Amino acid sequence: MADTVLETAPLAIDEAAADRIFRHARTTSQWSDAGVTDTLLETAWDLAKLGPTAMNTLPLRLLVVRSGEAKQRLVPHMAEGNRPKVEAAPVSLVLAADPAFHEHLDELFPVYPGIREQLAPATEAREAMARKNALLQAGYLVVALRSVGLAAGPMDGMDFDGVDGEFFAESGWKSFMVVNVGVAEGEGSPYPRNPRLSFEQVARSV
Amino acid sequence: MADTVLETAPLAIDEAAADRIFRHARTTSQWSDAGVTDTLLETAWDLAKLGPTAMNTLPLRLLVVRSGEAKQRLVPHMAEGNRPKVEAAPVSLVLAADPAFHEHLDELFPVYPGIREQLAPATEAREAMARKNALLQAGYLVVALRSVGLAAGPMDGMDFDGVDGEFFAESGWKSFMVVNVGVAEGEGSPYPRNPRLSFEQVARSV
Repeated sequence: MADTVLETAPLAIDEAAADRIFRHARTTSQWSDAGVTDTLLETAWDLAKLGPTAMNTLPLRLLVVRSGEAKQRLVPHMAEGNRPKVEAAPVSLVLAADPAFHEHLDELFPVYPGIREQLAPATEAREAMARKNALLQAGYLVVALRSVGLAAGPMDGMDFDGVDGEFFAESGWKSFMVVNVGVAEGEGSPYPRNPRLSFEQVARSV
Repeated sequence: MADTVLETAPLAIDEAAADRIFRHARTTSQWSDAGVTDTLLETAWDLAKLGPTAMNTLPLRLLVVRSGEAKQRLVPHMAEGNRPKVEAAPVSLVLAADPAFHEHLDELFPVYPGIREQLAPATEAREAMARKNALLQAGYLVVALRSVGLAAGPMDGMDFDGVDGEFFAESGWKSFMVVNVGVAEGEGSPYPRNPRLSFEQVARSV
């Protein structure tokens, strides 16, 4: 009975929401003139932060790069093809993982007292945990940005060490991606959507 | 003008959708009797697959572990605290990254002819790309599962090499997470939600 209900009503969110967060959303490089306020970014974060991470570690950090001057500090570290994309975007977010996430664990994961102290000397393990869970959070963030009406243009081609040296020498954050953010102009992309792999192609059952 | 509109209408999806995919969703360990059909998993995948990955690489792979017999092949490789969670869940998905993702790139990324051949000898680079983008896709998948009315219980505590040896010796897939899936019983969790870091705590501006 339950199966039948589920099979005939597959979506549990309305069609417009599914369109906005997945079906009509595109990796965006064409932007309207609408600005991106901190309020709007904070609203997106307040959704994205709720996504699950291992031991509630929440290692994702964001650098909001907005002014022309700040953009010019980021641009030289981007792959050449991504430079005009940073310059054109209303805001570029540098996504980074914070290996010092453990400092918040007394507050974030109170069910495991002592985990902060236990992780403190484990530098390599913390770096790996930070990167893994920050990447997972990046997935939530893309959806959350779209949920507040923003479009996202994630980019991977960049010199991460260069970015870290420029912006994160003190914090120790480790950049892993830049996401351009704004309100899309039209579809947001001049290209047709690339094909995807089907469930049959990616899934096996045992 | 655009800023004003955005600030006073922060969500672009309806409240019920935001509740379902983020605000009311919990890491679930308490399940109703409702089954999880392949149709439902496929519907979730058809949303999740649309999320952006670098060069449209789409390296995430899924092993659907459903029967009691299959569960017993997975259980010994889980951390002890996660074993009863696998046994209790209607379905456990092993999430894995496919380092051989490049074999699909002629189809998936036709704008870059030759990228398949170029990546073929770059085993280490492919493993890193696969892991990075599969983790990003895992974030999309958690949201997509929720979008079709399912709940997710992601778990990190496991022997990944053991899982790979048990299930992926031939495919070469690299497991990185298990996500229990089903319809939540009530809130799905007996615990109160842990706190989160605020935008102010995670974001800096330049």
